[in-house]
This record gives sequence, structure tokens and C-alpha cells, in this order.
Amino acid sequence: MGPRTERQFVRLSNFLGLHTREDDGLTQYPSRKLKQIVLLCRSLLSERGEVSGTRLASEVLLAYQSLTEAERSEFFDSLIREFSPDPVKVGRWGGAYRDEPSAENLAQLQRVVEPPRQELIRRLNMAPGGTRQLVEIRRQLLNELDRHPEWAPIEADLAHLLMSWFNRGFLVLQRIDWSTPAIVLEKLIEYEAVHEISGWHDLRRRLEADRRCYAFFHPALPDEPIIFIEVALTRGISAKVQPLLDPESPVSDPGAANCAMFYSITNCQEGLRGVPFGSFLIKKVAEDLGKEFQRIRTFATISPIPGFRAWLAEESRRPQSDSRRATLAGLVAKLEGPEWFKEKQLAADMQPQLYPLCAYYLLCAKRGKEPLDPVARFHLGNGASLERMNWLGDTSPSGLERSAGLMVNYVYRLGDVERNHEQYSKEFRISASREIEKLAKHTLPIDARQKIGPRPGEK
Amino acid sequence: MGPRTERQFVRLSNFLGLHTREDDGLTQYPSRKLKQIVLLCRSLLSERGEVSGTRLASEVLLAYQSLTEAERSEFFDSLIREFSPDPVKVGRWGGAYRDEPSAENLAQLQRVVEPPRQELIRRLNMAPGGTRQLVEIRRQLLNELDRHPEWAPIEADLAHLLMSWFNRGFLVLQRIDWSTPAIVLEKLIEYEAVHEISGWHDLRRRLEADRRCYAFFHPALPDEPIIFIEVALTRGISAKVQPLLDPESPVSDPGAANCAMFYSITNCQEGLRGVPFGSFLIKKVAEDLGKEFQRIRTFATISPIPGFRAWLAEESRRPQSDSRRATLAGLVAKLEGPEWFKEKQLAADMQPQLYPLCAYYLLCAKRGKEPLDPVARFHLGNGASLERMNWLGDTSPSGLERSAGLMVNYVYRLGDVERNHEQYSKEFRISASREIEKLAKHTLPIDARQKIGPRPGEK
Amino acid sequence: MGPRTERQFVRLSNFLGLHTREDDGLTQYPSRKLKQIVLLCRSLLSERGEVSGTRLASEVLLAYQSLTEAERSEFFDSLIREFSPDPVKVGRWGGAYRDEPSAENLAQLQRVVEPPRQELIRRLNMAPGGTRQLVEIRRQLLNELDRHPEWAPIEADLAHLLMSWFNRGFLVLQRIDWSTPAIVLEKLIEYEAVHEISGWHDLRRRLEADRRCYAFFHPALPDEPIIFIEVALTRGISAKVQPLLDPESPVSDPGAANCAMFYSITNCQEGLRGVPFGSFLIKKVAEDLGKEFQRIRTFATISPIPGFRAWLAEESRRPQSDSRRATLAGLVAKLEGPEWFKEKQLAADMQPQLYPLCAYYLLCAKRGKEPLDPVARFHLGNGASLERMNWLGDTSPSGLERSAGLMVNYVYRLGDVERNHEQYSKEFRISASREIEKLAKHTLPIDARQKIGPRPGEK
Amino acid sequence: MGPRTERQFVRLSNFLGLHTREDDGLTQYPSRKLKQIVLLCRSLLSERGEVSGTRLASEVLLAYQSLTEAERSEFFDSLIREFSPDPVKVGRWGGAYRDEPSAENLAQLQRVVEPPRQELIRRLNMAPGGTRQLVEIRRQLLNELDRHPEWAPIEADLAHLLMSWFNRGFLVLQRIDWSTPAIVLEKLIEYEAVHEISGWHDLRRRLEADRRCYAFFHPALPDEPIIFIEVALTRGISAKVQPLLDPESPVSDPGAANCAMFYSITNCQEGLRGVPFGSFLIKKVAEDLGKEFQRIRTFATISPIPGFRAWLAEESRRPQSDSRRATLAGLVAKLEGPEWFKEKQLAADMQPQLYPLCAYYLLCAKRGKEPLDPVARFHLGNGASLERMNWLGDTSPSGLERSAGLMVNYVYRLGDVERNHEQYSKEFRISASREIEKLAKHTLPIDARQKIGPRPGEK
Repeated sequence: MGPRTERQFVRLSNFLGLHTREDDGLTQYPSRKLKQIVLLCRSLLSERGEVSGTRLASEVLLAYQSLTEAERSEFFDSLIREFSPDPVKVGRWGGAYRDEPSAENLAQLQRVVEPPRQELIRRLNMAPGGTRQLVEIRRQLLNELDRHPEWAPIEADLAHLLMSWFNRGFLVLQRIDWSTPAIVLEKLIEYEAVHEISGWHDLRRRLEADRRCYAFFHPALPDEPIIFIEVALTRGISAKVQPLLDPESPVSDPGAANCAMFYSITNCQEGLRGVPFGSFLIKKVAEDLGKEFQRIRTFATISPIPGFRAWLAEESRRPQSDSRRATLAGLVAKLEGPEWFKEKQLAADMQPQLYPLCAYYLLCAKRGKEPLDPVARFHLGNGASLERMNWLGDTSPSGLERSAGLMVNYVYRLGDVERNHEQYSKEFRISASREIEKLAKHTLPIDARQKIGPRPGEK
Repeated sequence: MGPRTERQFVRLSNFLGLHTREDDGLTQYPSRKLKQIVLLCRSLLSERGEVSGTRLASEVLLAYQSLTEAERSEFFDSLIREFSPDPVKVGRWGGAYRDEPSAENLAQLQRVVEPPRQELIRRLNMAPGGTRQLVEIRRQLLNELDRHPEWAPIEADLAHLLMSWFNRGFLVLQRIDWSTPAIVLEKLIEYEAVHEISGWHDLRRRLEADRRCYAFFHPALPDEPIIFIEVALTRGISAKVQPLLDPESPVSDPGAANCAMFYSITNCQEGLRGVPFGSFLIKKVAEDLGKEFQRIRTFATISPIPGFRAWLAEESRRPQSDSRRATLAGLVAKLEGPEWFKEKQLAADMQPQLYPLCAYYLLCAKRGKEPLDPVARFHLGNGASLERMNWLGDTSPSGLERSAGLMVNYVYRLGDVERNHEQYSKEFRISASREIEKLAKHTLPIDARQKIGPRPGEK
Repeated sequence: MGPRTERQFVRLSNFLGLHTREDDGLTQYPSRKLKQIVLLCRSLLSERGEVSGTRLASEVLLAYQSLTEAERSEFFDSLIREFSPDPVKVGRWGGAYRDEPSAENLAQLQRVVEPPRQELIRRLNMAPGGTRQLVEIRRQLLNELDRHPEWAPIEADLAHLLMSWFNRGFLVLQRIDWSTPAIVLEKLIEYEAVHEISGWHDLRRRLEADRRCYAFFHPALPDEPIIFIEVALTRGISAKVQPLLDPESPVSDPGAANCAMFYSITNCQEGLRGVPFGSFLIKKVAEDLGKEFQRIRTFATISPIPGFRAWLAEESRRPQSDSRRATLAGLVAKLEGPEWFKEKQLAADMQPQLYPLCAYYLLCAKRGKEPLDPVARFHLGNGASLERMNWLGDTSPSGLERSAGLMVNYVYRLGDVERNHEQYSKEFRISASREIEKLAKHTLPIDARQKIGPRPGEK
Repeated sequence: MGPRTERQFVRLSNFLGLHTREDDGLTQYPSRKLKQIVLLCRSLLSERGEVSGTRLASEVLLAYQSLTEAERSEFFDSLIREFSPDPVKVGRWGGAYRDEPSAENLAQLQRVVEPPRQELIRRLNMAPGGTRQLVEIRRQLLNELDRHPEWAPIEADLAHLLMSWFNRGFLVLQRIDWSTPAIVLEKLIEYEAVHEISGWHDLRRRLEADRRCYAFFHPALPDEPIIFIEVALTRGISAKVQPLLDPESPVSDPGAANCAMFYSITNCQEGLRGVPFGSFLIKKVAEDLGKEFQRIRTFATISPIPGFRAWLAEESRRPQSDSRRATLAGLVAKLEGPEWFKEKQLAADMQPQLYPLCAYYLLCAKRGKEPLDPVARFHLGNGASLERMNWLGDTSPSGLERSAGLMVNYVYRLGDVERNHEQYSKEFRISASREIEKLAKHTLPIDARQKIGPRPGEK
């Protein structure tokens, strides 16, 4: 069933008995299509929606797909205008509750503050494929929020419901391998956001016996991974990512591995931004791998430091001592050279300068109270520990561009994860190896040193 | 994993770092077990819950299962005491909004009126098997509400979330037949609420080629039907249910059928009471059968009239003319005779007396503005039409006990369903065959006659 | 598609262009139906069969189903008459080969000795459901062989092909549990041949966590178990079968079990008689259980001794010393008493008399060179060892009737199975526990003692 | 489990109790490995094989894989030497039967003419993955037969059994689409033999809504297509194949199609050469498509004429009239020009010359009594009719190379298929359109004209 034409809508609305009267507030809608979709939404929310909800929901979503950009904008406006809480009622019951905080008044207040939009969204979800489209609508809204902050309540309603519907309890972990349907595999190729998959040949290597790939799926979105993680089973913690990615690398015996290296994790659905999946996925996969492979006892990542070079450039422009500025500017300039990392001497000179700066960036550069680096925020917030920096760990264009070629290992020690998470979330304390901490302290400007707290057990 | 002992909880709480301090309001809890479960709930709602939610949720649910009845009662009290909206904050933002109805104030108000219990329930749902247990907790609450009306807000929170999670869009229709796993089939035998299934032999007949059975399932409750419907494919509308139920009846050719008789529909999960499934199920099944069997054009029920005899008894005791009371009392008495329906003359005499009364009961006896009879409310509310009464349609003990042996056919005419539903839900107008309307009007006390409106098209 | 009427055959044969000419040998067939089926078989074997084989095969099998018993008899005769090797050709090439044993002459001889019936059967197998019907036809033939030994070649051809098609490599092991479709489960109830399953309730207990059931399936017979085995996971080797069969017995923790007791094994398809499945099934199941449960190290049966009482009666009538005859006759008489086993003193007296006789029966009573007892033949031939006798191990009517209430444990020691099998199959040596051997030797008539060879390692 | 080393074999043979005695004919084997494999085969055929067959079979196949080419050659020799029928016994029973053709003597003769190799192969099939390896062994044998005609009996035994095991009744038709596991899809890319699939993008287009792909699978070879067919759903019979193959072509509405064009059919398993699948597949697919799409009534191929150019070259060198030879030689020369088909005038001149020659080639050029062209043999033998020639139907390099760019449509008219097949197989009569027949007759040398028989109904 493809999008409907204007004419089909006329026929449909006659059939459904939707009539546009003059006094129903619809005259303001410039196009007939828009009037129809608003009428359909009203119907869906009415009692009629109880009996023919599935069909009305399908019609609304079909109509939505056929809207032009301008019409869609009008439609979002109408969702704010028509389907928000009634301020008069909210005011009345808000006051009533303040005057008399009874259970009854609270229940009434709860009833009137919930936007009718939420019920509308719930009923739209009844359409076949409805969930998928609601995720898509949220994606479109998120892209528009900058220009249309007034639509934030719609986005918030969608977010609220999607968060509830994509509850961990409803997600299903599936292993992805070469027996997975192509319709799913092609999406991995499309979505992979960390280390691009260059095609089926590349993908196939990532699904061999010494690699693992897992994804969360939701029953309402068959064939559509929500988030997926790629793992290499290795001997020892990997220091470089290119060998893991090489499609021509020999397949090793997974039974001999003692490490599971999480080298890529990708959220697939922009429309589910903010719904937390990653931490659940890492934990579940570490758990499952630990059961399957008795010898695997280390669960670590080989991660980029995506904000490092941008921060370095910024840092070089900050007011500071001339010598420090010169050093930083020199580094920034060298990093801009083409393939600098292939000049052995140059690279050898740069490492002792970049390591402490990177350590400092990871431990002390902040956004609010959390690390500035987004990958650091994610893994440290999940309870991982910052273990090791790796020189020339990623010499791909994007690895050089963003992380100056460095990579870092975060380690998930199952016994420490909860304590790390708690210290992070309560006190924003970061768990890092003594080596990285030392490097960071050493180089860092005096005033920043206290930001790194003492290690547990230290004075 | 079975329920935990007290001692295991001590060990667990030490491990999880849950400490019972004197000043945390836990001293009021009589038992250590209760303290633990409240502590676990607090942890689950805290930041810790973000990283170890699945596990904490499992612990809470495990702990819940091990509570005694008295402890459970205490636990529900604590859910009211600790996890309800903060009245001070609600009062503050309620007032703020009344004073200044801004988007910001509304958002704050929405935030504070939502009980933290709802987030607690969402996080409990992360546990494996969590959804199933939440449904069970609601079942227990519903059973206690009469004695503990103060727990209504907990039940309301559960209801709100279950309604959202068991949205039509997440339900999967499955055909049930003899290839269905036994673990599902045994539940049909257990749950069937309309016409008891006496065992596997009986069940098997109900799954033969001239019968159909469909159920809705939810992905979070595998092997657990939510609601199911039983259908007989027949030639002509059935007037009696016993022939349909007879396990020894010969199997007829479904290709020759022109009617689909819905003879039983059962909601399986008490804990999902109030979540509407039935109407979706009937519509979906009618749709699917219509596609599969080109010849089937009539979709009808063969339904009991479960409140008829109780109403009749009640009616006979009402103040009214002596003659009417005598007639009614006579009927009531005769219906109490053992196997009266086998005495041909007696039965023949009773039919002309019972028919009009039954028609009157169905069309004019009300609960509020809706029919007193619950089955009538269900089908008429779904948009069906009351078609025909059937003499001795169900001579089983329960059929005689509740419906005086009568059965009724409701017909779902696909073209009329929406109009019927709308007239019913807006004006409580009932769609019934002319014959039944005539019978009802004829016998009914003068003052009640106007309750049956004119038929569409009549003056 | 049901069986065809005579008239339909006429139409069909016209359509297929099958004409009954006078000179084609068909005049001998009394009925038109028989002529048609023979014509269809000829067509199927001809070139026409290459292009429309599936359809012709279906027609033959459909026609076969509609034959009366008399017609079926005629049909089998025609399969012998028309589709056997041509004796002239066989004679010619047999002689040619004797005269000149060339590869060419051998190939020709091989070609002419293979009955065209075999190719006919292969082509019949192309029909949907063909394999199932061929198994059924063999079942019918096996039942008739006594009265019609002349049909043995047809049965042999079927046996030859079924043996090849039901090769171990094509069988699929499936675990049967409460999630198995009812259509399979009902067949277990129907087929179980050792310890009758009294219904679904009984079956369900046999599929609980401390029980296992496995079956071999063949891809061409979906939903149709070929053979199945029932296993109880126990602590220690079971001495009695009734506790294992009790539907009300409590379910124990399978993780605590150290024995897998094979208490029942049933061949389901009479038409596959003689195709060996049992030995493969036992080995595969022992292997799989050993992997799943680290603690289970003993694989044993709790088996009936079905020929014991019949042999005892026979034995008591043999010419022998008066005292022995009197003893045996006394035992035989006592065993005929109703519920003798409930009289404690009587039973206590009988055990020391029955044990040595049973040991003797199992070790020394022969059919040819193999044990007379069929269950002993099966397990000992598979490489099991005769371990222990169990007094009142099976007090069911059939257990008393056939085995005098005794049961025996055969043990499958994985390390000994091959050696045992080899000694059994080459020298008919039985592996038995020292205790049973001693008992057998002690009581046994002098002349039979040497039948039990010395144990390996003994002089 | 990888191939075994020599040393492992020693250990294994000790374990299995396989001893190499001096007098067992094994001294002739140069390598220990070869002795072991022969010993294992003997064991497998012995009684030991009955109890430990699965394991012995695995060992043989594992050993086979580790053989060098020279050893494999020795092994095949030993299969001839050791596992062939015993000529003395065959001679004896062949003679006995000639002297007295009794059922008993026939049975004995049948027993001794069957090579023990067949039972050996049946037992090898018990190994997990055994069927797959037996198919591979036959593939290797087929490749060697030219150089080692003495191995033909081994190949014949394998062929005999594979023919029986890959009986139509055991094959499962599966639709291949974009939801098929990648492990299957990559095999289509690898195997496609008619119109190469250039990669996943190309493959995906061939699985869109207006294309269909079906394969036969065998339960013993999961993930391994046996044969597959590619179909385009079109309006009208396609004249050119390139538009069908174009990966960028727009997807059309399959509901509007009235033709199913079979444009490629590929046998995947060389080791199953000679086992007939194609005809069953075409018929089954035509049947299924006919049911799914009411409008599709024409089932046709768009086929190459792979032997045409080779025949043309051959023909031009035959002794014949000078003018004809000159014409043919001219054509042959022109066809060798690079991209001649792009020169409009040249191409326009060539068509009227090539058409009759092609018609003649298809109808009159023979190998024995059948068409010389292999594709023609296949489709005409299946009962199709030769419908139409298509100028520049395939301008791919291989299309030009083999078929001079021409393609032909064979049409499967469901009502005529059986009659066509019968006429073809009995009288080698070809069903062709009047137009093609006319063209062929016209140009053809006088002496060949009678080869084309009169059309049915013509005098």
C-alpha cells in the first residue's frame, strides 16, 4: 500500500464518514490533505478509535508519508495545538491539589497533565509497522528541533513512549553470523559507524570463527538491528585495530583466545537516540562469551579518542605560557602533515609528547563534570576502566583525523564494574590505570592536577 | 533460581553493598527481608540501576516471591509511602503552572506528578521474565483492592504501563492447531472460560479441520496465550452449541462452510484485566477467515446470556402487577425444576413466555446506559448486531443455570460494524433484528417501551 | 485427495492415454481398477515416468489405497509376475559371466538381476508422502508373508530400499519435551510398547526436568517418530520401574543425577522392521547426555525379561530329575497365584529360587547361539553388560505375567561397548557381572555349565 | 576435526584394535596411512561396523581427506580389488541359476553380484556430513574416469546410491530471497553457470519482487543448494536477456506480469551429475507460480544456443557446394569480428542468413537421434516446445562466443508437456513453432528435410 493521492483521500473520508464542517477549526488548514490527517487523528482518539483503531492508525501513517515538507510542518504544529494538555484544566487541578493534596486531586491532575498526544501515539502504534514509523517520525523531529524548538513536547512524548516500549525486557539478543539473512547483514554494512564495512567480503571476515557479532532486536522491528557490537577473540589485549579489520587476515582458533576485544559498537536507529542500549549489550555479551569460552577472562575495547585532535587544536589556541603554546602548535602542525606517521623519526619524537596530552585529555578535559571525550563518557560511565594507550593504534584516515592515530583500551573487569560505575556516577571519579594517571598528572598544568583524585587506597 | 532464604539475602546485600543505616526510614520495617527488598528497589531507581538494572530487577522480583502475605502487604504499603509523587513538589509546580501556564512549568509539573513507581516498574521489567511477574503482581493487587483501596495507585501505575506494553501493535496472532506445542495447548484447557474443555480428546476435536482457534501472544510472554477465540466453520448460523462442542461429531468439509461461528472467547490473563484485546481479535480473525475461505460471508457468535436467570429472579420480586408477578414467579419456579427442558410439553409452554422476556432483558435491562448483560455489552460495543434467540441452545448445567438454556447470535456484518459501534458508544443505541425488537416491545412494561429507539429509517 | 472411484479411473486413464488393449496381458485382471493400477505402474516405469513421474506415482498410490483386499492380493501377484527379473536374461548373462568373468559381463548381469520392481518403488517414492506409504505397504506385506510366502521378493525389495533410505546418516535426533507439537506427542502415547502411557498426564510426567525423551525422525516423515527412548535421570541405578513411572512422583533436580536410566525404547514403524535404529539411538543419547550433565557417568537400562516365565513353564515340563521338576512346577504354580508378591513370606521364599533360574535363563537359554530373551539379545548385542537382577522390579500385570516381576539392569560402559559387541558378535560371549554369572553357574544343570566361558583374565 | 597425522593414525589403530598382520594382503600398500584406511574400511564392513559404524565411518572419511593424490589413487585401486563381487561366487550362482532358475538361486545371485562396495558406501554415509563427502568423492572420480576407466565400477556404485538417495521424494523446494541466509546466497554467486552473478548487488536485483529464485535442497546437505532456477516475471515473452540481468533496471509490479521467464538454471553439485533434477524443478516452479499469480499463463525460457557457433565453424569445413561453403565461411569470419553486432548494416545483413542456419542447427543437427545442442536436448526432452529465435538476445561475450548472440525461447505449455515428452522420447520428434520449422526446412540441404517430421495433424 503506497501513499494515497488527494483524490483517494476524498473517497476515503467519505467512506469513513469524516466530514469537514466549517466550525471545527479545520478551515485554518491550507490543504485538504492536512484537514484529512487531522480529522483522522481526532477519530483515532475518539471512541471510534476503539473499534477501528488499527485501520485508522494505518490511514494516519499513510497520510503522514504523503505529506510535503511544508504540510508536515503544519501537521506538527497541529499536534502541538490540538493534542496538548488543556491549560485551563491543568491550572484548575494544579490549584486544587495545592489547596488539598488528596489522592483524588492527584489522580485528576495526573490525568489532565498527560498530553492526549501520548494516547494518540499509542493508538498509532496499533497500525501494522506502526512502531517503525513512530521511530522514523522521532528521527525527523530530532533533526528539526533546532529550527523548531516548539515541537519539543512532541519529541518528548515520543521519547517517553519509545523509552518504555524499548525497555531492556523487550529486547532480544541475537548472534549475527554468516547464516543470518542477507536483509539483516546489509544493514550492518549500512549502519556501521565506527570502522566502516567496505562490503560483503569485509563483512564476512568479521563474522568468521574468531570474530563475534551480536545485536539487539525488538519484536516490533523484525530484520532491523537496534544496536550491534563487533568482537574479536584474541590472545592478549589488542593494541592496533587495523589487524583486526584486515579482511585477508588468517582466521585463528577461537578456543585459544583469552581476550574478547570489543572493537565496534553502533546504534542503528537515530529515532531511538537517548534510549540506553549499549551498556546492556556489552554486559550481556561479556556474560555470554564468558560462559561459552572458559578461557576468555579479559573483556576490553579497542576504542578511538574521537575528540582528541579537536581538543588539542583548541588547547593550542588557549592563553598560556609561550613555550607550551609553541609545543602544542608544533604538534598540531605536524599532525596535519600527510602520512606523518610513516616517517619513523618524526613519529618517534611525537609519541612522548602526545601520550601525556592524551592522558590529560581523557582524564582532565571535561564537559560539565564528565569527560569531554564521548567514547570515554560511554565506557567509563558503564563501569569500565581506562587501561592503556596504543601508539598508532588506528592509522586509517578517520583515526588520524580524530584521534591522532591513538587508540585506547577500556577494560570491563566484571568484579569492578559496579563500583566503578557508582564512583563515576556519584563523584565523577574515573577508574584508570596507574600509568595513565601518572602521565596525565605529570604534564598537566598545575591548576588541573587536583582534578584527578587519589586512587582508592592511596592517601 | 528459586526464592532466596533470609540468610542468602544477608549475603547478597553485603555483596551489593546495601547497608541498613539507622536513619534511612527502614527501621519501621519489621523484617530484614522487607528492608532488603525496599533497599533493592531504591538501588534500582538510583543511578546504580542504570548499570546493574537487570540484576537488581531480578533480585527484587525474586525477593517479592519469597514474601509472606503479611510482608507483601507491608511491601505494597511501602510502594505507596516511598514511591509516590512528592506532594510538596506537586503542590509547588501545580501552583506555579496556575500562576504562569508556560511550557516550562507544564513540563516540570508533568515530571513531578508521575509517580517514581512507574519508573520502578519499568526497571523491574528489565528482569528476565519480568513482564510475566508484573502481570502476576497486578493480578494479586486486583484481588486485594476491595480490602485495600489505598493500593489503587499501584494498580493504576501497573495498568497504565501494561496497557501501553500490550498495545495491539505488539500482539501477534497465532493459529492454534494440533501442531501447536503441548505447553500452549494445556493452557487452553486450563483457561477456557465459556465452554469448559474436558481434556485432550475434547481439545483435539476443537482443532480439527472444521474448527479454528486463534490466540494473541505477546513476545515477552512466550507460550502464554493472552486471549483466544474458538470458531466453528458451519453451513448456516448455529442455533445450538452442544452439537458444536460434541467431541464425537463428524468433521465436516471446511471448504463447504458459509458461516464462521465464534462460540467461545476467553481472556487468559487476569492481570491484564481491562486491556482491550477481544475486539481486535474478533476483527482480525474475521478478516483472515474471509480471505482464506471465499465462501464464508457470515461471522456470528453463538453466545450465552449469562445474566438472564438472575435478572428474571430479581424481576419477579419487583413491585408490579399481581398477574405479572405470578407469571414471572411461575417461570422462575419451573426453571428450577430438574431437567425441565426434557419435558416436551412444559418446554413448549415456556418458550413463548421466555422469549419476550429475554428480548426485553437484552434490549432494555441496563447497567447505567449499557445493557445489563456482560456478553451483550461486549459484542454490541464491538459493533455486532443482536440477531436471533435460540431455544434450548445450551442445555449444559451452566447454560441452564445462567441463561435458562437460551443462546443468542450476535452477527458481525463487516459493513455495519463501525456504524453500530458509533451509535452504541455515542447514544447507547443497540443494533438488533426487527424480530427481537418486536418481541421486546410487545411484552415490556409500558414505561420501558420508549427505551428502544426507532430503527434507523423508521419514524 | 481421497481414493478414486472406478469412474474417475476411467476418466483418468482416458486423460493419461492409457488404453487397455486385448493383447497386453491385462485381460487376466478381473477388475478395471486393477488393470488401471498395473497400467499406471507400467507408465511410471516407462519413459513417460521421467517427465510426469510425480503425478503418476501419486496416482498409483491413490489407486493402491482404494483396492479391496482381494484386489490388493492380485496387485501383489502382478508385482511378482510383471516386475521381476527376466529369467531368460538372467540365465543368459549368468552363463556368460561364468564363461567369461569380464567387467562387462558382470555389469550386464548386475543390470538384469535387479528387479524392475526396485526402480518402480524408487519412482513411487517421488509422490508427495510416498515414503510414508511405502513404509505402510511393507507393513501390510510383512503381515501377509506367512500366508503368501511368494510375495517375499516384493518385501525384500522394499526392505532393501528402506534400509538404504533410512540410513543413520539421514536420521535426525530430536529431543521431545512439553514444547513438542501435540501431533507428535500423541504418537508417543499411541506407540509406547514397553510401559504403556496412560494419557497426557502420564506423558507430561515423563517429559519433566528429571526425565528425557529423544526420538529419531526422518525428513520424509515429518511429525512421525521412527523410534524413541525414555530416560530417567536418577541418583544410583534404579532397581524398580514403578517409581520411575509414577505420574505423581516429585520432580527431582537433574543436576544432582549421576545415572541415566533408559527405561523404555520403542520402535514406532512396523513397516521399518529390521532396519537398525535402537543401537544408534542409545549411543547418541548417552553421548549427548554425557556432554550435558558432567556428573552422569552411568548409562543403564531397567529392562524386563519378557521370555522368563514362558521359559520357566517350558523348563518345568522338560524331562529331568523329579526333584528339580517338582521345584520348578511349584514355582510355576506359585507365580500363577493372584498378587503372590504381596505375601511377604511367600515372596521371600521365592527370591532365592528365582534368581539363579533367571540368571541361568539370561546367560544360558539360547535361540541358536544367542540368548533366548529378546531384550537380552538387543542390549548384549549392542555391547551392554548384564549387571544386576532386581526383585519385584516391575509388579505391573504385564511385568508379573512375562518377567515374574523381575527386572534387570544392562549397563552401557562407554569404554567397553565395542569390545563387548565384538565378543558377542564373533563368539556369542556375554558380558555379565560376576554375581550373575556365579548364580547362573551354581544352579545350572551340570551339562550347561561350560556354556558360560571364563571371564576375561580368569583361567 | 581436521585431517589426522600419520602418528595419530597409529594411536587410533592401536585404540581400535586394528592390527596389521603380515598375511592380510596389506603388505602391498606402500604407506601406513593407506593400510589404515583399508583396515578401517574392512572394520566398517564387518560386524564391528554395526555397533561403532558412525565413528568408523568418520575415521575413514577423515583418513580419505588426508590422502595424497598418489595415495588416493592406490585407495581407489583397493576399492576395486577388495570390495568387488567375488567372481567365483558370481560364476557359481550364475551357473546355478541358469541350470535351475529358482527364486532361491535368483536371491543368491542377487546377493553375490552386489558389490560389497555398495554396503561400504552406505555405511560411510552414517558419518556426520557423510553424504556431502560421498558427493565430493564421486566428483573426484568423474574427473579421473578418462585416465582411470578401471574405476568406473566405483563411480557406478556411488551413482546408483546417490540416485536413490537424491530421489525427488527427498528434495525440498525452497524459495530464495533476500531473507535467505548469506551462507546460501554466496553459493548462488559461486555456482551460477549461465549468466554470471557479478556480486551481491547483482544478486540482490535478481531477488527483487519481479524476480523469483527457487532451489532444491536435500536434508543431508543443509545450506547447500542442489539446483536452482532464476525466473523473471514479465509482460510478454522476453526476447533479450540483458534487460533482465541489468542490476539497475527498475523493479516492476509482479502482479501485472503474465509471463514467467526462466532465464537461468544451474546444477550446483558436480558430484551429482546425471541425477535428474532440472525437469522436476521447472515443473514444480511453474506449478507454484501458476497458483500464486493467477495472471501468469506463459512459462517460457530465454535460452542460449551454446553449440551453435562451434557447429557453424564445423559445418563450414564440411565437404559441400562451393557457394554454400563460401557463405558459411563468410559468416564464420564476420562473427569473429570484434563487436560486429554494433555495426547496424552488417548485423542487418547477417540476420536473414543466420536465422535459417540456427533453425536448422536446432532441429536437424543431431547427436545420435537427439539434438546436438545440449540446452535443446534438455528442454525438448522435458516436453517444452521450441517457440522463437531472438536476434541479439544475448550480446555478452559468452553469448556472442557460443550462440552468435542469438537466444531462443522454449515454451512449457502445461497441457502439451507430456505429449511432447513422449513424442520426443519415443520417436525423437521435436515440437517447434511452424515458423522455425519453415526456416529450417527452407535452407536445409535436401537430404536432411525429411528429418523434420510432419506436424501433428498435417499430412
